Amino acid sequence: MSAPDSDIAALAAELPDGTVITDPAVIEGYRRDAANDPHPGLPRAVVRPGSTEDVQTVLRWANAHRVAVVPRGAGSGLSGGATAVDGGIVLSTERMRQIRIDTANRTAVVQPGVLNSEVKRAAAEHGLWYPPDPASVEISSIGGNAATNAGGLCCVKYGVTSDYVLGMQVVLADGTAVRLGGPRLKDVAGLPLTKLFVGSEGILGVITELTLRLIPVQPPASTVVALFGSVQDAADAVVSITAKVRPAMLELMDHASINAVEDYSRMGLDRSAQALLLIQSDAPGAAAEEIAHVIEACEKAGATEVFATDDPEEGAGFTAARRLVGLALAQLGTLLLEDVTVPIPVLPELVAGINRIADDCDVLICVVAHAGDGNTHPVVVFDATDPDMSDRARRAFARVMELAIALGGTITGEHGVGRLKRDWLPLQLGDDVMALTRRIKDDLDPHGILNPGAVLS
Amino acid sequence: MSAPDSDIAALAAELPDGTVITDPAVIEGYRRDAANDPHPGLPRAVVRPGSTEDVQTVLRWANAHRVAVVPRGAGSGLSGGATAVDGGIVLSTERMRQIRIDTANRTAVVQPGVLNSEVKRAAAEHGLWYPPDPASVEISSIGGNAATNAGGLCCVKYGVTSDYVLGMQVVLADGTAVRLGGPRLKDVAGLPLTKLFVGSEGILGVITELTLRLIPVQPPASTVVALFGSVQDAADAVVSITAKVRPAMLELMDHASINAVEDYSRMGLDRSAQALLLIQSDAPGAAAEEIAHVIEACEKAGATEVFATDDPEEGAGFTAARRLVGLALAQLGTLLLEDVTVPIPVLPELVAGINRIADDCDVLICVVAHAGDGNTHPVVVFDATDPDMSDRARRAFARVMELAIALGGTITGEHGVGRLKRDWLPLQLGDDVMALTRRIKDDLDPHGILNPGAVLS
Ligand SMILES: Cc1cc2nc3c(=O)[nH]c(=O)nc-3n(C[C@H](O)[C@H](O)[C@H](O)COP(=O)(O)OP(=O)(O)OC[C@H]3O[C@@H](n4cnc5c(N)ncnc54)[C@H](O)[C@@H]3O)c2cc1C
Ligand SMILES: Cc1cc2nc3c(=O)[nH]c(=O)nc-3n(C[C@H](O)[C@H](O)[C@H](O)COP(=O)(O)OP(=O)(O)OC[C@H]3O[C@@H](n4cnc5c(N)ncnc54)[C@H](O)[C@@H]3O)c2cc1C
Repeated sequence: MSAPDSDIAALAAELPDGTVITDPAVIEGYRRDAANDPHPGLPRAVVRPGSTEDVQTVLRWANAHRVAVVPRGAGSGLSGGATAVDGGIVLSTERMRQIRIDTANRTAVVQPGVLNSEVKRAAAEHGLWYPPDPASVEISSIGGNAATNAGGLCCVKYGVTSDYVLGMQVVLADGTAVRLGGPRLKDVAGLPLTKLFVGSEGILGVITELTLRLIPVQPPASTVVALFGSVQDAADAVVSITAKVRPAMLELMDHASINAVEDYSRMGLDRSAQALLLIQSDAPGAAAEEIAHVIEACEKAGATEVFATDDPEEGAGFTAARRLVGLALAQLGTLLLEDVTVPIPVLPELVAGINRIADDCDVLICVVAHAGDGNTHPVVVFDATDPDMSDRARRAFARVMELAIALGGTITGEHGVGRLKRDWLPLQLGDDVMALTRRIKDDLDPHGILNPGAVLS
Repeated sequence: MSAPDSDIAALAAELPDGTVITDPAVIEGYRRDAANDPHPGLPRAVVRPGSTEDVQTVLRWANAHRVAVVPRGAGSGLSGGATAVDGGIVLSTERMRQIRIDTANRTAVVQPGVLNSEVKRAAAEHGLWYPPDPASVEISSIGGNAATNAGGLCCVKYGVTSDYVLGMQVVLADGTAVRLGGPRLKDVAGLPLTKLFVGSEGILGVITELTLRLIPVQPPASTVVALFGSVQDAADAVVSITAKVRPAMLELMDHASINAVEDYSRMGLDRSAQALLLIQSDAPGAAAEEIAHVIEACEKAGATEVFATDDPEEGAGFTAARRLVGLALAQLGTLLLEDVTVPIPVLPELVAGINRIADDCDVLICVVAHAGDGNTHPVVVFDATDPDMSDRARRAFARVMELAIALGGTITGEHGVGRLKRDWLPLQLGDDVMALTRRIKDDLDPHGILNPGAVLS
């Protein structure tokens, strides 16, 4: 892909002042997302459109000149989906920041550059709630959330981003802007194209507006923390909890994560525990009943300690321990963050297999998991200055994906394929699904300008 | 599309005995769905495959011979999506009837010919629930539900079919069978193709297996019935109810529907009421609190009468009134069943507009609605033996769709486009979205053998 540099000047001339940036110092800040690719491409420009029309101008130009376009929200992605491409442009949505709440229809119409937390706050001002809560809620854009179909802690009960996207405006590779879906809570007119774009990781189009479904705010949650002598016991508890109630959060920390957090924060967690479950119930008025069932399920599964509280502050303290895992582990070395999901019954097998891989590869792998939906985040911790260990870490990372696939799981539950996991996608999907994916991609983006190298090679 | 009749014998020879039926008397029963097209096509055969492999054989043959294939579940569709095509075949899934429940993973793996109610019952045996509840629960197939993305009464709280489909096996036009998604509660590996097929109305592939998400059974619901002097008052109540609680059902009947049901059943409904709301709450333990809010919202909105009960039987009695509307109206004449959805705030405008259309066209139009999500079913009642009135009924049907589009709504909230509403789809979606739809259709089904004439002309 190439076009003379004079062409970028022509593009800049078509757009409002300041939209196209070619300053190398600024560009440097747009080369990587949070996957931190050590070898990102060097783009020729960063383009920051302010409107759908600007995005159309950019894509028309890029399509005509066969220039790669990497859509970028807030760059918090963990799969290298927004890693820059040599000679391409980075299309950042950071200046598209409008929010409009329709209280009677319980919808929000937002531009893609708004942060998830800003949508939540705008909705909260009207007593409404936008549930999807990736841990990156303060640092990820709603457009990025839609492009990756972001999950989070509450999605075990409330669903993922896709469940809240009613409609969107999206600019296709050739610059055509289409409106899909809309502010209707139910709409089956035509193919479900809205859903096709949620989770499409920037390879089919650039999302320039989203219509989101909001729900009434939920009451404060009650919390249970339970410790277990084995991951199997904890998994048994997960199964019997979710057989009866719909917890608003159901997280797991393994032995290594518990100890990492304890090293970091001295909260008084039991270092000998093999697994910790963190469960919340927010069933209006029925939390007590649900919590009673949760406690019983944990005890029956052999929990060594169970603690419950309906004090939201105390509950938040435990949630904080869960959220600390990332920080705690970052103290120990460089991290490779996995995101494999398996059917819940094989969760213990996955964790046992991960422990074997950690031994084999001689690296530390801690597991935290959105256990209620089988979505785990094994974190490979290593010393990046040690080339041999770095190799072993990457091998471990790959083997975890292969293990997940062998167990009927997926290589990514919520972070996306991006560039980091692209090479494992065919192993999971098989040739026919890859071919189908490729047909749809080629059909919508015949010149392959949209996020080349992400998802598909 | 044509192929000599000898070819169908060749197909029959490739399939288990009794799979291909060419008996005209049997074929007659497969020409129409519940939309009852007066001029259905005359297919050359009905094919009833027993397995995915059989479906592959059929599609390979049909693709090679350019024979139209109309996928058919239970034929309860209301949009003519399963109306037969001249010279084509009807591919009925009625013999694909396996169900497997995985309790620990809370999933069901089902073949498409199973009825929705059979899935519900199989799940219930394990204390689990498959929520989507079209009124056709006893007479529609799960494959048809997935192909139309069926809704129902409880979807205002629990979502539609798409929210419960985790994976599927689907046979593409060329006979390739692909597995999309799977028994993972979260999975973002690759494009979200599973979601693309849910609601694709048989134009992209034939669904031969579904993996469905189940949730724990919910406690019995409490019920409120409220009467209003105007649709505007009822709509105000809807807005303030849903601002605070998530009812498990929120249905509306207008003046004409109330009277039709009262004529039919003498339940003692107030014939002077302009609108009736039927609300249920199943919040475990908190129904009382939610119901209190519902009652307050109805009273504030000016309800003339509010009645509440937490006796499930009594509640079911009221729900029965709602479910009687279809039968009650069928006494009055032939029905044209609409399915338009609008943003909730314009619900009163829609109902007022429908009343104007009824006056203009001199036909009766009763409105029942899944009011909580703005999905209305205006029912045009007419005398089919009166050609002039039939014309006026069809005109009214069309004008209701045009009105919905003008109000920012959709021509179909849950029944699908099929053949009945195909000609209005471009008006709603516009040329660019139609072109995008057409590109994806042509790409997946280059010879146009899959359900030609449905959705796209
Ligand atoms: C500390 C931390 C915690 C995290 N926790 C979670 C979590 O709990 N759950 C979770 O799901 N993820 C999590 N993530 C990952 C990340 O935050 C999400 O993937 C998020 O949705 C990315 O949003 P972004 O705006 O940062 O997108 P970016 O990183 O900028 O881009 C992500 C992808 O989306 C595409 N894209 C962005 N905007 C658009 C657009 N407008 N149109 C088309 N394509 C676009 C990009 O090309 C790229 O492929 C976490 C990340 C961090 C750093
Ligand atoms: C009394 C009554 C009440 C109803 N209430 C509701 C309601 O509340 N909510 C609602 O949403 N609908 C309702 N419907 C409409 C209808 O029941 C639904 O659309 C249902 O999902 C259709 O299922 P089916 O098996 O009868 O499909 P069919 O009518 O046989 O087919 C419907 C469409 O799906 C396609 N199809 C069927 N099976 C497959 C497959 N395996 N693979 C690919 N394509 C396939 C067909 O080609 C067709 O386009 C009602 C209908 C009746 C008669």
